[in-house]
Amino acid sequence: MLVATPQSLHFDAPLALQSGASIRQYDLAFETYGTLNSAKTNAVLICHALNASHHVAGVYAGQAKSEGWWDNMVGPGKPVDTDRFFVIGVNNLGSCFGSTGPMHANPDSPDGQVYGADFPVVTVEDWVHAQALLLDRLGIRTLAAVMGGSLGGMQAIAWALLYPERVRRAVVVASAPNLTAENIAFNEVARRAIVTDPDFHGGNFYRHGVVPKRGLRIARMIGHITYLSDDVMNAKFGRQLRSTVVQAGASQDYRYSTQDVEFQIESYLRYQGDKFADYFDANTYLLITRALDYFDPARAFGGNLSHALARARCKFLLVSFVTDWRFAPARSREIVKALLDKQRDVSYAEIDAPHGHDAFLLDDPRYHGVVRSHFESLAAEVLV
Amino acid sequence: MLVATPQSLHFDAPLALQSGASIRQYDLAFETYGTLNSAKTNAVLICHALNASHHVAGVYAGQAKSEGWWDNMVGPGKPVDTDRFFVIGVNNLGSCFGSTGPMHANPDSPDGQVYGADFPVVTVEDWVHAQALLLDRLGIRTLAAVMGGSLGGMQAIAWALLYPERVRRAVVVASAPNLTAENIAFNEVARRAIVTDPDFHGGNFYRHGVVPKRGLRIARMIGHITYLSDDVMNAKFGRQLRSTVVQAGASQDYRYSTQDVEFQIESYLRYQGDKFADYFDANTYLLITRALDYFDPARAFGGNLSHALARARCKFLLVSFVTDWRFAPARSREIVKALLDKQRDVSYAEIDAPHGHDAFLLDDPRYHGVVRSHFESLAAEVLV
Repeated sequence: MLVATPQSLHFDAPLALQSGASIRQYDLAFETYGTLNSAKTNAVLICHALNASHHVAGVYAGQAKSEGWWDNMVGPGKPVDTDRFFVIGVNNLGSCFGSTGPMHANPDSPDGQVYGADFPVVTVEDWVHAQALLLDRLGIRTLAAVMGGSLGGMQAIAWALLYPERVRRAVVVASAPNLTAENIAFNEVARRAIVTDPDFHGGNFYRHGVVPKRGLRIARMIGHITYLSDDVMNAKFGRQLRSTVVQAGASQDYRYSTQDVEFQIESYLRYQGDKFADYFDANTYLLITRALDYFDPARAFGGNLSHALARARCKFLLVSFVTDWRFAPARSREIVKALLDKQRDVSYAEIDAPHGHDAFLLDDPRYHGVVRSHFESLAAEVLV
Repeated sequence: MLVATPQSLHFDAPLALQSGASIRQYDLAFETYGTLNSAKTNAVLICHALNASHHVAGVYAGQAKSEGWWDNMVGPGKPVDTDRFFVIGVNNLGSCFGSTGPMHANPDSPDGQVYGADFPVVTVEDWVHAQALLLDRLGIRTLAAVMGGSLGGMQAIAWALLYPERVRRAVVVASAPNLTAENIAFNEVARRAIVTDPDFHGGNFYRHGVVPKRGLRIARMIGHITYLSDDVMNAKFGRQLRSTVVQAGASQDYRYSTQDVEFQIESYLRYQGDKFADYFDANTYLLITRALDYFDPARAFGGNLSHALARARCKFLLVSFVTDWRFAPARSREIVKALLDKQRDVSYAEIDAPHGHDAFLLDDPRYHGVVRSHFESLAAEVLV
């Protein structure tokens, strides 16, 4: 079993952000797995999505249940094989898992208050610039691959465009070239639930000793619905009532209540909401959903994605899932088409998995097979 | 222009509910349009969905902007032609538009408090029984048709099953034989937003002089997303930024804010949420979404919809909309198939309208044409 060790590096030079603001100094939390070869050709950067972190793979010493969020994908003998590749997971700025974020002290605050709502808006591109600085410190010039799912896939795209000479391969899973109006709408409802929770206190809830848990629960419940497919929800929960002891042969009756849990799906969503509200930071939720909203590389090219992607030099692998209605296959196909328009080298797999957007985190043999063979060909290229 | 006049009837006999509870006495608000013929063969009942009322058609005297919610469908010369049919709209029990509901005095309260959260859970079948009692009072034995969209369509189905001898035709638009897990999930998130709003006070907010507007706003925003198709949202809003004055040729820049409105879709949803929170009752929202959750005529038949629908004797018209992902065409087809299994007379139209679930309220010539010809053939049958 891979044992993971969280690390951190401090950065003293200010990071200029896309918004025009800057972060004066910051820490980046990260983990590495495997060994960097002497030619430094085997580094793979894994970018995380909304509620994940730098803890991509392995477990922490003495904590058997602390698997990384992509442990089925990254590790010894796994599709991204840490016996061959040196894999880096990094926590993004504004997150709540170790890198500098809203719950850390604001160096510009005279009385040492935390950033709270004053943490500057960060974008996918800002994250990528910070990741590049981390790689500089680790002595890595070129990535064999940058890889991510969902929002992580957007970072992989941004890498290919901002640092075309530093990336050999970009692996973009269950992602999109930008959010649709509906995607933004779901994010906005989640943000409104958080911001209008009286315990949010304009984002400065820390000093009030409270957490806007009501809003966080609602935000997570909404998110969770969009991560699952209708099919898998019906297969897993359907219209099942909350389990109670029912006599053999007897049909369980409704309770007829508007507020009690009646259906299993309600119980599941409430549980997910409660769990999330216990560990996730409300300001981080706002920041990360906004980074999703803002990502739109075609914007600077009048909406022309082909022109935007023309800067990329790497090979691409795109993967989408048929039942993903958050980032539907059509969105991945837009990227594939734009890359082909510019004669870029792109492979694309559309996986008929039933799990919706969540499929990118799950263990599907066809999906993992595609990634595995992509990294095998990459190994043949860089491990000489 | 049709001028509508709201009416109300008081019912003294208790109404036994599906839950085992009862409503001791109650009022039903309703409107009628057109004239009941002497043979009493031309009555059409229109059932309303989540946030509508008995005000189906026409305007109130002196209020030009008070069109009924289905005014494009019902009126003189409209598809449901009030020059030929006597059309009845009725507000359902538990609603907040005139019929007895949570904001009315609870006759069992010693100090005359309103029902609030104590209003009993009402089901689609309970509404239909109350509607039947209203028809008795109006001297109408048989309906030429019962018609509704969405939740209103469920009432039309329930009419066909509970009073098969009193219905000639059932017109079921954009409906479903029950809710999926995902449908229930969206309802549950909306309910949690309302119930966890500190201003909800366990449903007894009236006596505190407040309204759980935060929760109502979130509930409405979620609902609204599910009423629209992804396509129409992209066509109408896309990724447009909130309109500001932009110099010719200049590209409008992001504001980089997590809490301000940045995209048009956000502005639209906030507006819809605000408007709804100003007029809709929170307890009514809980009751009506629960009525949706509970509706499942196949449940008493071990999940066999064909067996459940075997009781129906009327002719059916079903209409669905290709882009409706709340109650997708597949759900209407389940009903059609179940009716055909039992050799019932059923017509079905699947309309390729872009507007999603909302299409049932909009003026589409193909959709209205189908309904018009159905009512013309009905007129030929009943107006002799």
